[in-house]
Amino acid sequence: MRISELSSTTGVPVATIKYYLREGLLPQGHATSRTQATYDDTHVDRIRLIRALTESAGLSLARVRVVVDALTDPPDRRHDLLGIAQEAATPDPVTHASEQWTNAARDFIERRGWQIRPADPLIALLGTQLSAFVDAGTELGDGSALDAWADAAEIIGRADLSTVPPEPADALRQVVLGTVLGDPIIATLRRLAQQDASARYGSPDSPPDRRS
Amino acid sequence: MRISELSSTTGVPVATIKYYLREGLLPQGHATSRTQATYDDTHVDRIRLIRALTESAGLSLARVRVVVDALTDPPDRRHDLLGIAQEAATPDPVTHASEQWTNAARDFIERRGWQIRPADPLIALLGTQLSAFVDAGTELGDGSALDAWADAAEIIGRADLSTVPPEPADALRQVVLGTVLGDPIIATLRRLAQQDASARYGSPDSPPDRRS
Repeated sequence: MRISELSSTTGVPVATIKYYLREGLLPQGHATSRTQATYDDTHVDRIRLIRALTESAGLSLARVRVVVDALTDPPDRRHDLLGIAQEAATPDPVTHASEQWTNAARDFIERRGWQIRPADPLIALLGTQLSAFVDAGTELGDGSALDAWADAAEIIGRADLSTVPPEPADALRQVVLGTVLGDPIIATLRRLAQQDASARYGSPDSPPDRRS
Repeated sequence: MRISELSSTTGVPVATIKYYLREGLLPQGHATSRTQATYDDTHVDRIRLIRALTESAGLSLARVRVVVDALTDPPDRRHDLLGIAQEAATPDPVTHASEQWTNAARDFIERRGWQIRPADPLIALLGTQLSAFVDAGTELGDGSALDAWADAAEIIGRADLSTVPPEPADALRQVVLGTVLGDPIIATLRRLAQQDASARYGSPDSPPDRRS
């Protein structure tokens, strides 16, 4: 198909498609003359992936490039593919973690028995986030809340992995979109579950409503 | 104390404190003359709360006002206080949920047996988020992933409630900050748990590392 048809099929303007081509996010078409090229279904799929990552998941083009590079040259091990998808799906920390908090995060991960690369940037990110939580004077219930959150994360992580399809392009798409678009769903479920817990186990001044 | 001392104690500029006074976020001081007033520890605490909500949790002043109004006139039931804290801690949806997706969210909540007010805006928010997830072509594993997320949310919700102190001001602070600052921690724990699950239960082309 011509670029005009690629545009009408995907609903993405020609100028945007040309931008993706220049940026190397979309492979070049098959040249039919010095100024014209044809495109096929792989281009349609790639444009839909870029739109899903940028529009639905709100990823920057720099993060989309990480995903696209991985598709062009997929890693041998599926576990490495997960790492790449996570890299795209994880925000850069606003501030850097202190060594003390990074160590606290590392100790926590070790105590959970989680198999994480020692240099994984998620460890420092967790340190930064824990530090912000504690610095704000917020209670972690002597750490028992953090352990409950980790128990919950294990359930979520196993469920996430179970939805990942075998083909590398589909797997990358699922992990990136499922992680980025899943986070707000989990945050909302958390608030709903807080309400349910409050109605169900609330203190005496908050009698639970009768179940229907 | 004078406003200058209130400023040095809290590290917040006098101009900002005057802004909080004008906006009604901070109660007026005790007037000692037509142009001067003194302030006490309740003002220090309130300023620290406002800073924690705006700086650590990234809340808008409109959302801070919801919290502050609840502190000035606390609801009788703790369950209502939770609702107010959640209102402040929950983003407005970017788009509105279709009736179809709101109903799907309501059905899911009902099937879980969660005690949620029928008009709670979290229901429509969940519908919007589920719709974005499915529209992006992301897999929910026939809904089993969503049920696993809800199981996890129940663990998180119970843990969250267990950290809420009895005094209304402390309780509001804990729920708002614990919810807003806890979300990114839970998102990071999720990614770490995905990696652990991949290392532990990965497909045969991804042999798990030996545990030490």
